[in-house]
Amino acid sequence: MKRFAIVGHLAVTSGTFSLNDLAGSAGRMDVLCRCINSSFFLSHDLRRDVECYLILCGEPGPEKTVLFRGSEVRYLSPDERSSAALIKKALSIPCGDEFRESTPGVYIRRGGLARLLAEIPFAVLDEAGDDIRAASALPEACLLSDHHNFTAGEQDLIEGYSRYSVGPRSLHADHTITVLLNEMDRRES
Amino acid sequence: MKRFAIVGHLAVTSGTFSLNDLAGSAGRMDVLCRCINSSFFLSHDLRRDVECYLILCGEPGPEKTVLFRGSEVRYLSPDERSSAALIKKALSIPCGDEFRESTPGVYIRRGGLARLLAEIPFAVLDEAGDDIRAASALPEACLLSDHHNFTAGEQDLIEGYSRYSVGPRSLHADHTITVLLNEMDRRES
Repeated sequence: MKRFAIVGHLAVTSGTFSLNDLAGSAGRMDVLCRCINSSFFLSHDLRRDVECYLILCGEPGPEKTVLFRGSEVRYLSPDERSSAALIKKALSIPCGDEFRESTPGVYIRRGGLARLLAEIPFAVLDEAGDDIRAASALPEACLLSDHHNFTAGEQDLIEGYSRYSVGPRSLHADHTITVLLNEMDRRES
Repeated sequence: MKRFAIVGHLAVTSGTFSLNDLAGSAGRMDVLCRCINSSFFLSHDLRRDVECYLILCGEPGPEKTVLFRGSEVRYLSPDERSSAALIKKALSIPCGDEFRESTPGVYIRRGGLARLLAEIPFAVLDEAGDDIRAASALPEACLLSDHHNFTAGEQDLIEGYSRYSVGPRSLHADHTITVLLNEMDRRES
């Protein structure tokens, strides 16, 4: 299983956002939607061996985590609006301490990065890390930040974690996922 | 200069489409919007050395070509809706035989693939091509298809062209661009 987690520092935690304003009042939800796209989509196929966690840290709070499971997900199309509609639906159901399914393969629970890090051994994808092409083994679970850097508090949580870079330029989170998956595809083929 | 051209087989040629239905009535304009994103965006920067040609082949016709120039483009954000709004604006101005600027760095003209191929020496990005990592030199101009394969007529136009692949899996056009640009970044660094 490959796992990605993306911290959405401003991504709203209420399902009242407009699908017509993902980059604005939804707190750059568009960034997270593109990470869903790059985590799952192949040409005319889905990556069934991927799980993607979206950590929503925006208003009104508290933090929530939305999980997309490639093995189960349905009704997902590549466009931003499609994954945003599934996130909006997840945010509209009662949110408890354990993952609850909102639509097939999409789940939501309370809690954010600290809780997820206690459950899954993540590595960090970060421009200052070791080049993935030179890595003897690739991490199975990768944490990324959205358009903002990790906060000081988040940096404390991930201190000492392995860090990997996908190349010489600093890329958007979704592009980083695409490049890493390409390296994984090559090693598996 | 790096150049990408993407054939949008169903992408509408009228500016009346809705920004709320890019994947539907706009003829999968979302695919082309993601190609704009992957062609230009770096983390907190734009790739100024890229040009991206969108070949719109959908209703009502005739074919039109929209050009985004990284060195000049303004008002472009990463979300699909942002590039779609610039395409819609381009489609709303009178369209002649030569490129006319609709917003800074965005141009439109009549004509499609045949005309563009006569002007620029493209290579084709295609899962059956030679692996880019093994290529002694990378192509400076790359042609891709959207979610549909090249038509028989298009295949005739590109017969004999160099073909390159980015890996063992068949990827979406925008992901293909991301992986190729990563390889280019590595060679330039």
